[in-house]
Amino acid sequence: MTYCVAAAVASGIVFASDTRTNAGVDHISTFSKMNVFEIPGERVVVILSSGNLGVTQSVLSLLKLRQADGVLGAKSMFDVAVLVGETLREVLRRDGAALEARHIDAGCNFILGGQIAGEAPRLFHVYPEGNFIESSVDTNYFQIGETKYGKPIIDRVVKFDVPMKDAAKCLLVSFDSTMRSNLSVGLPIDLLAYEKDSLRVTLRRRFQENDPYFREISQFWSSGLRRVFQEVPDVSWS
Amino acid sequence: MTYCVAAAVASGIVFASDTRTNAGVDHISTFSKMNVFEIPGERVVVILSSGNLGVTQSVLSLLKLRQADGVLGAKSMFDVAVLVGETLREVLRRDGAALEARHIDAGCNFILGGQIAGEAPRLFHVYPEGNFIESSVDTNYFQIGETKYGKPIIDRVVKFDVPMKDAAKCLLVSFDSTMRSNLSVGLPIDLLAYEKDSLRVTLRRRFQENDPYFREISQFWSSGLRRVFQEVPDVSWS
Repeated sequence: MTYCVAAAVASGIVFASDTRTNAGVDHISTFSKMNVFEIPGERVVVILSSGNLGVTQSVLSLLKLRQADGVLGAKSMFDVAVLVGETLREVLRRDGAALEARHIDAGCNFILGGQIAGEAPRLFHVYPEGNFIESSVDTNYFQIGETKYGKPIIDRVVKFDVPMKDAAKCLLVSFDSTMRSNLSVGLPIDLLAYEKDSLRVTLRRRFQENDPYFREISQFWSSGLRRVFQEVPDVSWS
Repeated sequence: MTYCVAAAVASGIVFASDTRTNAGVDHISTFSKMNVFEIPGERVVVILSSGNLGVTQSVLSLLKLRQADGVLGAKSMFDVAVLVGETLREVLRRDGAALEARHIDAGCNFILGGQIAGEAPRLFHVYPEGNFIESSVDTNYFQIGETKYGKPIIDRVVKFDVPMKDAAKCLLVSFDSTMRSNLSVGLPIDLLAYEKDSLRVTLRRRFQENDPYFREISQFWSSGLRRVFQEVPDVSWS
């Protein structure tokens, strides 16, 4: 399984993804699901992927192979979203029938976001069918993969006007909740915060197993939740 | 959709269920999913249900119709679990093929728990196939329906040795998280706390829309989470 999330706020876009893939609990591997295409000063495009690893890897391989005329050449983030969708459909034309014949789910989802000079930062969710939607001030984040455990805290915290540092912190807390409830999502976690109009990647970090900061927020959050819980008034039965 | 949860702790079992059913967002109704079979001083059996409403209602109707020789006559909670599974299979024999022909999901899940004199309290999860599992000290709660949003807080708090009042409070907090993230789960909520060896229902309550206590815990929890979140150290990028 996978968990990827990205949130667009006024000051930029924060991306986070885990690195665990599994084909059964006895076949767990580590693959980064965060792919960055960058021309410093001109564009930053980040693509997160979930779903069938064969399909997502092929899509990313093709996007990289053709990046000069593709992701790095596209005139707008909208055009990049179209390109990701078309590349996905191309891979499904090649592999889809064979997977379907074995009842293997070929479905995958992509989050893509970033900024191309001349545009504001933009964030998209590309669906398994290759179509897509764009985020807005009201719906400013997308999740793919194992999304539900980590959704409540994002719903409470990540509004469009929160500082980027709060959005980044919240995505990590959201990962902590997800990893506690689902073993198939795990460290390392890749975190990237794109600052609006910087047109380059300045804040990027991988949280490894036993990362002291991640352990600290995990423990802090856990003990804080328990403290708040104890302070919540007991059920009144009358 | 539905959300039902029950947790067995050392001092008893707490049950909670919402009352919303929907067949599309324009067809939302209120049905209690909490069914209580009681012979005061002798047994208490609580059954929570999720899934296809036609199937779950038929199962419960049959269980009630035959309760004298059934739920109220069974020698053990294990026998009640077998009975619920067999009744489910009976209904599926009657309605399953017709539903399947229209590609309607006939699946449903039941949580059943309580105590019959001579036994300790016991808690079971009956699957859509009619088979079932029983809770243990290590895995002491079951959820059915829309389970994921509300799972993280239960995983953190509801251990077997927590006081029943904490388990009750936690299930309500779990509902609050679920309702914020999924519109198809909604008030009123039915809450029942069965005290071990009481062999009667003493603590039962419905939380209606605008219930002042539920609103209070919801606001308290929300502001507490935000406070803890602000106290979590910011991401260190180095």
